[in-house]
Amino acid sequence: MQQIVVLRWGHRLHRDARLTTHVALAARALGASGFVLADTADESIRSTVTKVEENWGGKFFFDMGKPWRKEVENWKIKGGITVHLTAYGENIQSCDVLERIRRTGRDILLLVGSQKVPREFFSEDISDFNVSIGNQPHSECAALAVFLDRFFEGEELNKEFEKARTRIIPQERGKKISVQRGFSRTA
Amino acid sequence: MQQIVVLRWGHRLHRDARLTTHVALAARALGASGFVLADTADESIRSTVTKVEENWGGKFFFDMGKPWRKEVENWKIKGGITVHLTAYGENIQSCDVLERIRRTGRDILLLVGSQKVPREFFSEDISDFNVSIGNQPHSECAALAVFLDRFFEGEELNKEFEKARTRIIPQERGKKISVQRGFSRTA
Repeated sequence: MQQIVVLRWGHRLHRDARLTTHVALAARALGASGFVLADTADESIRSTVTKVEENWGGKFFFDMGKPWRKEVENWKIKGGITVHLTAYGENIQSCDVLERIRRTGRDILLLVGSQKVPREFFSEDISDFNVSIGNQPHSECAALAVFLDRFFEGEELNKEFEKARTRIIPQERGKKISVQRGFSRTA
Repeated sequence: MQQIVVLRWGHRLHRDARLTTHVALAARALGASGFVLADTADESIRSTVTKVEENWGGKFFFDMGKPWRKEVENWKIKGGITVHLTAYGENIQSCDVLERIRRTGRDILLLVGSQKVPREFFSEDISDFNVSIGNQPHSECAALAVFLDRFFEGEELNKEFEKARTRIIPQERGKKISVQRGFSRTA
């Protein structure tokens, strides 16, 4: 199965902290393998993601501070492709762009902007595909979620997160969690 | 077709402003009919949503400041059901909860929390269904997006937004928009 890593571009300290945290946690929960916070280091985000991973398990790498262009270049050198999520791209619903992405069979670096991205993001040098989740302005967090859910065909939501200390037992009413022995409840 | 209205609970001024804006814009772009910011009035969010609607079209109502409990009661009196999005609920992927929601044939008030919600949200009095988008902690914005995309089976992304001044023409590269005569480009 192709792996997906999310690259967050344009993160602004403080202003974007919560939104970028949501993007990172959504990436983890919805099947991505890792998250790169490009160009900036933000310890608050790293700390949140690390704590979630320690408690809720799974393998998810987190990296930050590396220049975005270098990340894209390295990804391509290793044989991966890049997919840029943008309201201007090919609509995931009205054309076969997801199928074309799948057919490459290659790992995907998913470029998720915060501020308005530089125009070169749309070029072949940077993005192999420009994909829109509808052609309306909305939220990169929402767009990422729909992309991942469709790409993994929902199976990401059944995934078992290894070495979890805390697990939710889904149910119709109330909250039920199981906590591994030796750890206190932290949910 | 059943209508969906999103009720945002627990919004905190300033702290949640951007996230709640993303939730509202995702609701609009992904097929919901309206958005209620419960208990609080936040003019910055109303202003953003109104501007997006003026420019990008569609019918989407925005309401704020009404007590959440009253909204839920009124919704049920009018024959609607409530669905609470929570990591603790029935997993949308591993059971038939979405099908059961559809089978009611009734309009849906979708409860989306920000802070930790009161325990009564899980009760039958408040929520007819508690639904999880995976049982991991992530983002209410991401969860909302997946719920709407699945509920509307993707058709929401093909929807034409009436009376739009600005429309994106989706394409493989670059940005292309069409602007209605008499309006300047504001995208």
